[in-house]
Amino acid sequence: MMNPQPSTRERLIASGLPLLLERGYHGLGLQALLAATGVPKGSFYHHFRDKEDFALQVVDAYMREVHAGLDACLDDASLAPLDRVRRFFEMTQQVYQSQGYMGCLLGGLGQELAGVSDTFRKKIETCFTGIASRLVVCLKEARQRGDLPATSDPPQLAALLVDCWEGAALRSRLQRDLAPLDAMLDFYFRSAGAS
Amino acid sequence: MMNPQPSTRERLIASGLPLLLERGYHGLGLQALLAATGVPKGSFYHHFRDKEDFALQVVDAYMREVHAGLDACLDDASLAPLDRVRRFFEMTQQVYQSQGYMGCLLGGLGQELAGVSDTFRKKIETCFTGIASRLVVCLKEARQRGDLPATSDPPQLAALLVDCWEGAALRSRLQRDLAPLDAMLDFYFRSAGAS
Repeated sequence: MMNPQPSTRERLIASGLPLLLERGYHGLGLQALLAATGVPKGSFYHHFRDKEDFALQVVDAYMREVHAGLDACLDDASLAPLDRVRRFFEMTQQVYQSQGYMGCLLGGLGQELAGVSDTFRKKIETCFTGIASRLVVCLKEARQRGDLPATSDPPQLAALLVDCWEGAALRSRLQRDLAPLDAMLDFYFRSAGAS
Repeated sequence: MMNPQPSTRERLIASGLPLLLERGYHGLGLQALLAATGVPKGSFYHHFRDKEDFALQVVDAYMREVHAGLDACLDDASLAPLDRVRRFFEMTQQVYQSQGYMGCLLGGLGQELAGVSDTFRKKIETCFTGIASRLVVCLKEARQRGDLPATSDPPQLAALLVDCWEGAALRSRLQRDLAPLDAMLDFYFRSAGAS
């Protein structure tokens, strides 16, 4: 059976993601997007109210992928809970590599737009808290098993992991290299287990 | 004695910094900058080749402030070396607060432009490695005194500190709050001392 053809809306979102990752929000020209997809302008405005609406829907699509990755890694009962968490970030490294070391869309749009758009500021913040809340579940399980100290604070550790990851993702984007992400994960997991 | 009047070039750079922090590179309109400073367009182009040249000079001015802060904190022999390092970041938190929680200019421009401009990508990366190299000196001294384990790796710890800080600075920008930076510093200094 063949896969169903993606809809125009899906094609626009799929093409928008790498463009937004590379060029950012202001750097994404709708003309370039329409040229890349062969979609006429009127059709774009049939599916999206404006560029902001489009970018927000790209973020939603990005987050569906992120949560699918979290599902795949965090629900894997064959791994210890901390290994599941690390597995998710290692899988994300592979995604970054496949995208040309562009780092994280949330970090990119968050930095670019948080100063001028409360819509994006709150949207991106909600995405991060959503990811952290998934990680908390595993971190609590790790604490229960004794893989984290009894005094550790899973919500705080989850927020720290997301934050430190984002800084390392920026350096990965600047260096076009995964090494900053590796170093950060090594430091974090060594520290979280000891603290 | 009165301070000498700042030059037109200095006024443009001083006004450009908060605009770049808030709006980013693409969001900074030269018209808005000229209106804010009352400088005519021709005068801008007398001092700067173009917008890119201007933004790079704002980054240079930003880095002069950063290195002045590093001088003030890291050379303070009355503090233990790790306390000097922490002092620098706590001072930076106060700067962020005074600027309306806009986070770090390097993180903002790095995220926005690294995908489209090798000039900015390399420039921002050089700024980060320059900061880290200053921190290394104190971290080595801390290791020598036994405040860090003998097995610790100062260059790697310095890079990690800069990277984790940048992620926390993004969250600070999103939340308009210093709390993510506090949490990150607590985690880092507890972990670095133990690892």
